[in-house]
Amino acid sequence: MLRTHTCGELNATNINQTVTLCGWIQKVRKLGGMIFIDLRDRYGITQLAFNNETNAALCQQVEKFGREWVIRVTGLVAERYSKNKNIPTGDIEIIASEVEVLNESMTPPFTIEDESDGGDELRMKYRYLDLRRNPVKNNILFRHRLAIEIRNYMNNIGFVEIETPFMIKSTPEGARDFVVPSRMNPGEFYALPQSPQTFKQLLMVSGFDRYFQIVRCFRDEDLRADRQPEFTQIDCEMSFVEQEDILNTFEGLIKHIFKKIKNIDIDPIERMTWADAMKYYGSDKPDARFGMRFVELNDVTQHKEFKIFNEAELVVGIVAKGCANYTRKQLDGLVDFVRRPQVGAGGLVYVLCNQDGTFKSSVDKFYDQNDLKAIAAKCNAEAGDLILIMSGPRMKTQKQLCELRLEMGTRLGLRKAGEYKLLWVIDFPLLEWDEETQRFYAMHHPFTAPKPEHEAILESNPGAVNANAYDLVINGTEVGGGSIRIHDRQLQNRMFKVLGFTDEEAQKQFGFLMNAFQYGAPPHGGLAFGFDRMCAVLSDCDSIRDFIAFPKNNSGRDMMIDAPSTISDAQLQELFISVNTKQE
Amino acid sequence: MLRTHTCGELNATNINQTVTLCGWIQKVRKLGGMIFIDLRDRYGITQLAFNNETNAALCQQVEKFGREWVIRVTGLVAERYSKNKNIPTGDIEIIASEVEVLNESMTPPFTIEDESDGGDELRMKYRYLDLRRNPVKNNILFRHRLAIEIRNYMNNIGFVEIETPFMIKSTPEGARDFVVPSRMNPGEFYALPQSPQTFKQLLMVSGFDRYFQIVRCFRDEDLRADRQPEFTQIDCEMSFVEQEDILNTFEGLIKHIFKKIKNIDIDPIERMTWADAMKYYGSDKPDARFGMRFVELNDVTQHKEFKIFNEAELVVGIVAKGCANYTRKQLDGLVDFVRRPQVGAGGLVYVLCNQDGTFKSSVDKFYDQNDLKAIAAKCNAEAGDLILIMSGPRMKTQKQLCELRLEMGTRLGLRKAGEYKLLWVIDFPLLEWDEETQRFYAMHHPFTAPKPEHEAILESNPGAVNANAYDLVINGTEVGGGSIRIHDRQLQNRMFKVLGFTDEEAQKQFGFLMNAFQYGAPPHGGLAFGFDRMCAVLSDCDSIRDFIAFPKNNSGRDMMIDAPSTISDAQLQELFISVNTKQE
Repeated sequence: MLRTHTCGELNATNINQTVTLCGWIQKVRKLGGMIFIDLRDRYGITQLAFNNETNAALCQQVEKFGREWVIRVTGLVAERYSKNKNIPTGDIEIIASEVEVLNESMTPPFTIEDESDGGDELRMKYRYLDLRRNPVKNNILFRHRLAIEIRNYMNNIGFVEIETPFMIKSTPEGARDFVVPSRMNPGEFYALPQSPQTFKQLLMVSGFDRYFQIVRCFRDEDLRADRQPEFTQIDCEMSFVEQEDILNTFEGLIKHIFKKIKNIDIDPIERMTWADAMKYYGSDKPDARFGMRFVELNDVTQHKEFKIFNEAELVVGIVAKGCANYTRKQLDGLVDFVRRPQVGAGGLVYVLCNQDGTFKSSVDKFYDQNDLKAIAAKCNAEAGDLILIMSGPRMKTQKQLCELRLEMGTRLGLRKAGEYKLLWVIDFPLLEWDEETQRFYAMHHPFTAPKPEHEAILESNPGAVNANAYDLVINGTEVGGGSIRIHDRQLQNRMFKVLGFTDEEAQKQFGFLMNAFQYGAPPHGGLAFGFDRMCAVLSDCDSIRDFIAFPKNNSGRDMMIDAPSTISDAQLQELFISVNTKQE
Repeated sequence: MLRTHTCGELNATNINQTVTLCGWIQKVRKLGGMIFIDLRDRYGITQLAFNNETNAALCQQVEKFGREWVIRVTGLVAERYSKNKNIPTGDIEIIASEVEVLNESMTPPFTIEDESDGGDELRMKYRYLDLRRNPVKNNILFRHRLAIEIRNYMNNIGFVEIETPFMIKSTPEGARDFVVPSRMNPGEFYALPQSPQTFKQLLMVSGFDRYFQIVRCFRDEDLRADRQPEFTQIDCEMSFVEQEDILNTFEGLIKHIFKKIKNIDIDPIERMTWADAMKYYGSDKPDARFGMRFVELNDVTQHKEFKIFNEAELVVGIVAKGCANYTRKQLDGLVDFVRRPQVGAGGLVYVLCNQDGTFKSSVDKFYDQNDLKAIAAKCNAEAGDLILIMSGPRMKTQKQLCELRLEMGTRLGLRKAGEYKLLWVIDFPLLEWDEETQRFYAMHHPFTAPKPEHEAILESNPGAVNANAYDLVINGTEVGGGSIRIHDRQLQNRMFKVLGFTDEEAQKQFGFLMNAFQYGAPPHGGLAFGFDRMCAVLSDCDSIRDFIAFPKNNSGRDMMIDAPSTISDAQLQELFISVNTKQE
């Protein structure tokens, strides 16, 4: 090894040892007759000291060194005069006697500091330099530690990690596939997997009974903020289980992770039906760190002349505790918030519950004090509280009020970093209706089993069928989800029919799975966690990009390597394809 | 859970317990008034007993059951009359009281037994059934166990697993890339990585200093036997090291694996230069489980009238101990062997060293007893041995004799399963000359560093430059290889020039890496193991396919899911490509 120690490990116990370190120059400082260098590697920073009086030649050499040069230094560990309590190596420094430049460096395009002066795009382009910064580096180390913990936990409870293929078959269901032209099979394409869903089900048919995999998945979607075309999933499946067994098994994993990684003992995870989540939070992934639950107000609002409420399918409110003192400006700010295109509401009705027991609302014209009192009573609002009310079509209004609730939670400091509230959201609908294409789509995927008691109405009333499907939600973020699968070929056929597949389409896309189900498929189910997302949520970060070593930007472009790129005509010809950049 | 126990865990200590098992029916036997079922799951087989006298209704139900049905059984654990010593559950059986059919099964297309009656193609098509067979299942479990051991070992010595992207940039160097058309960047393509080579080097530039990843790689090659378009690599890289450090670090890993997985203490791994490997074994991956080293015989053969030897660049032989009693038929068989197109030799000269001290050869016409004695002496052959001699151009003849040596090793039982001989082959040439394209190619890859003492002749005599490159060879199979990398931008530029890249090409393909090297690249190096191959070698298996859950056939086709396949016109249009199946 070119070094005897790393830059993060020397302390007072090493004083008087001769050591050799390698690393990057974080900083060079001249102080009287001394030059000090902060030498950095993955493990920390160690101070090097060069004395002009005792070793002028060395100082002359070192003077020319710049930031981010890579050097190798030999010297004596000595006690420092002015100790730095902020770093583990702060008690010592190295009195350098020998220096070798391993590589010079141009001045980096942004500072390699915890708070860098580089913008997003510049840091993406020089990602290899951005990765030197502590916050980014620590995220990648955190991700590694999390993966190791997960793998060992899963292994210890009998799960087998099995690698499934990356070059599979394109299926039109779900998101768009990335495809790979086959040179050996002209005119044919592989698809990159959106998930190993069918393979893990086949592994259950094979009898592997407890499978997991930390695996890359691919979706060719229009990238919204914080979506990546390739992302990593913790993919899991079990046989001979019911929903309850799966929830318990993975609650164990989650508890283990929180204990090992965050040293937090989490409570038993609360269960909430999808219907309740929508009704009380307007979302299938409620941030349950705070209450502020929805209260439906149709009965106490729809008896007056206020047309907007009277005509609304839903009138629904939340209570912001202690906000009755909001100024007109603050209230207008909330109206502006819900009118933003991202929320898209027409407006907002407020009721201030004054300390003196009176009420003041933006619809005083229609509602007298008694009416407002009734609304406040229904909401369990007290003197000093602010009631915020929205109305309109049910789903749309719920979603809008959900945004407002989260905004209020943020404003009131109720969404605390370091506090974790976990939820199992259960009993999802099996299907959702799409207005545009006028057909049902699977809410999870076409292999999700309807609840046994709903099987009979699958064809007659598909929209009313619930599924044995579940999501894990942490602080308002869906970190995973899954379902009990269909293991019966007949039922799977019925499901495909409801989804509008012809027999031929179903056979072409999923024939292998249907065939497999004829040879003794066990009852099974599973789930998948978004690994990037889990890293982010556990670190109280918003962006998954911070936890991916080499992420892509919103156009799916790797700014650093400049991919995708054109390929040669010879390559295209070998693949039997040509490019039509002018779209018809 | 639908079961209380698995089919592999019950024994005499469980007698009189009521248990519930789930599994697949391996066999149904009727014996007098009894029906016996062997119930199978991933963990083993347990015998179920149904008594017609005590429970006729149940027997009537069970009678209809067929192979591979999935059932759930509740009953009492009882001691067996005729115990089966071959299985852990052989002391007990379950006196069944309740049975539920979880799923029926059609008769499988081949028997689910250790020795199946199904041919390769049938078993590939029904891979999910083939995976139920013990030998295949155990390979997959073995692979999992090996991966866990490797990950924990690497983690314990400070290596960080970092996921690198799968959608990268196509580079014409090396094998052919699989490419992925980009919908968002019309006319542009991603490439699937042949290895994370450049990314791991960038991670060294980032300072991660000890990286590894068990990662899928992709190569669009014409598939020879036992190549797969997607395969898995244990990819590793370290900074601030020299070759010796890398060899020692990964020797540690290999020792750990052998100890943990095979309970074998392996000797310190022998080092052999590439030149010696070629000279003594005619291969850069010698099977060193047996000797039979090459002896160059030019000096003792090229003084007579035998034109073939006199005109040959190389005359080289091996000694087959104790084979002087080979019959004419056996000797002819060896001649036939070397004449097979796979070996491609014109013929073979033999010298029998008779027990009485005389010699008999196929070239007695040219060589008298003294000549043959000199040859035998040079070969260290003794009475009773057989000398086999080949001649021709050096490299070609070495390769041919290598094939013969391996064949003799096999015939003489010298390549023993369960015996492992490991080798580091070192000092590879940096470049190899390609006659067809009349240029040098990198023997490992373009980032491999020349030996420092050879740097000066990189341009003047490229063919003579050796590299700090190394392969790990086990029993004649290359299981891994790597090198010290170039970390200096200037040297890397020179290397690209020698490889025939223009500045523009080098910049276009590897600009990001060249740029990165300007910002303080540390000295670094690494290696990669073929994970599929390692699984196979450690299991004394020839085929990596046996260790891949869902492999592809030699046309790169997944027979089970029938991929690749055509995609819709809409998909093609979205991707701005069209298919030309008629090749120009």
